Amino acid sequence: MTKINQNIHRFGEEERHGVYRAIYERRDMRSYFTPTPIEDDVLGRLLDAAHHAPSVGMMQPWRFILIRDAGVRQSVYELFKQANEAASSIYEDKQKALYVSLKLAGILEAPVNLCVTCDITSGRGRGLGRQTMPETAIYSTVCAIQNLCLAARAEGIGVGWVSIFDPDRLRSLLGIPAEMVFVGYLCMGYASQFDAQSELQLQGWEMPSELPNLIHFDRYGNTDEKRAAQLLGTLKF
Amino acid sequence: MTKINQNIHRFGEEERHGVYRAIYERRDMRSYFTPTPIEDDVLGRLLDAAHHAPSVGMMQPWRFILIRDAGVRQSVYELFKQANEAASSIYEDKQKALYVSLKLAGILEAPVNLCVTCDITSGRGRGLGRQTMPETAIYSTVCAIQNLCLAARAEGIGVGWVSIFDPDRLRSLLGIPAEMVFVGYLCMGYASQFDAQSELQLQGWEMPSELPNLIHFDRYGNTDEKRAAQLLGTLKF
Repeated sequence: MTKINQNIHRFGEEERHGVYRAIYERRDMRSYFTPTPIEDDVLGRLLDAAHHAPSVGMMQPWRFILIRDAGVRQSVYELFKQANEAASSIYEDKQKALYVSLKLAGILEAPVNLCVTCDITSGRGRGLGRQTMPETAIYSTVCAIQNLCLAARAEGIGVGWVSIFDPDRLRSLLGIPAEMVFVGYLCMGYASQFDAQSELQLQGWEMPSELPNLIHFDRYGNTDEKRAAQLLGTLKF
Repeated sequence: MTKINQNIHRFGEEERHGVYRAIYERRDMRSYFTPTPIEDDVLGRLLDAAHHAPSVGMMQPWRFILIRDAGVRQSVYELFKQANEAASSIYEDKQKALYVSLKLAGILEAPVNLCVTCDITSGRGRGLGRQTMPETAIYSTVCAIQNLCLAARAEGIGVGWVSIFDPDRLRSLLGIPAEMVFVGYLCMGYASQFDAQSELQLQGWEMPSELPNLIHFDRYGNTDEKRAAQLLGTLKF
């Protein structure tokens, strides 16, 4: 098969660059939300991007709670604040000082919040692919979130994923039925800034890891730094 | 804030179109793998795209097993075949006939397989965001898979996610340690075709669901078809 045949379905340079740019320039947003409302058509595009995620057996188990009401966001923020105070207690000294200085959510500043849930009871897809790995229903819902995050980046919109809640209290606040899985809580808004690095890196909480160390060949444990470096050594986009 | 300010960080039209195109034209690939090898530099880009997924506390818990060995793929295929035969037994009559006619994995045809695992024991990120929702480590790994699937689409490469395995037998076959979570098994290769719709839809297994029904406003259960239709009625990319 010739080079040309290989690339029939490859995107052109600009479109391909757009995909990688979204992946590389996406940030978990906490600090830079502006109050500018997200227009209906843009928000619709983001939700539809999420709705086009892969899903096991075409189950499409995602259910969205779109939260713009300031009172609801205030109540959610209180839950975050309590959970965050509790979370800080496992750290000590300098690490604790750093933790409490971190801004970890933009619930009130972001004009749109989105709670993403998963209906694991749905019969859609007739169980295909779920008999051996039922957790794939939830994984499909996570893929929907990642689609939304990347489409948002292309629109200049920042998304921050907040996981510092008592999930049961959040479920109760938002009226999420017992049979639904609460997957993620997102803060969304036009961003004044996208940093070149993640906020946690810039604030000295954690540094990026090296990809070659994370690649095993044919079997777990069979790492090969030289082979991995060769794979990754020529990265060009 | 003016329209111009809102859009400082918005991508240009072509790049933005590339992101949506990857999202809409990605397919879960089973039938159309070509034997053309994936070049190292392309494979490196896909793995690096995965490595740039969001992760809780910057944990980056994904670990990749890159499988090109034909013997290993053959053994994985046997596990799939056994699990798939067992899975077919819950269906009856026409549904069973349809199920057994479906091609659900391209393990042997795809030149590259990738098993994605998650190290939930990693101390990276110092537990930030994981005290209340430890499952977010696995969700980060799923985001890495979705990044890879979208970058692959931009390269003309199809990815198929296989979940029809006995997970314990697959772990044992690939030597995955007990403390690691097996998240997903992917088949990857240049595709001869990307259908306009999903294979499961074309084969009549399941039809796409309507997005407006999946949107709740401010609280679960508060659906509003008219409001949702307004959000989504003007979709333009």
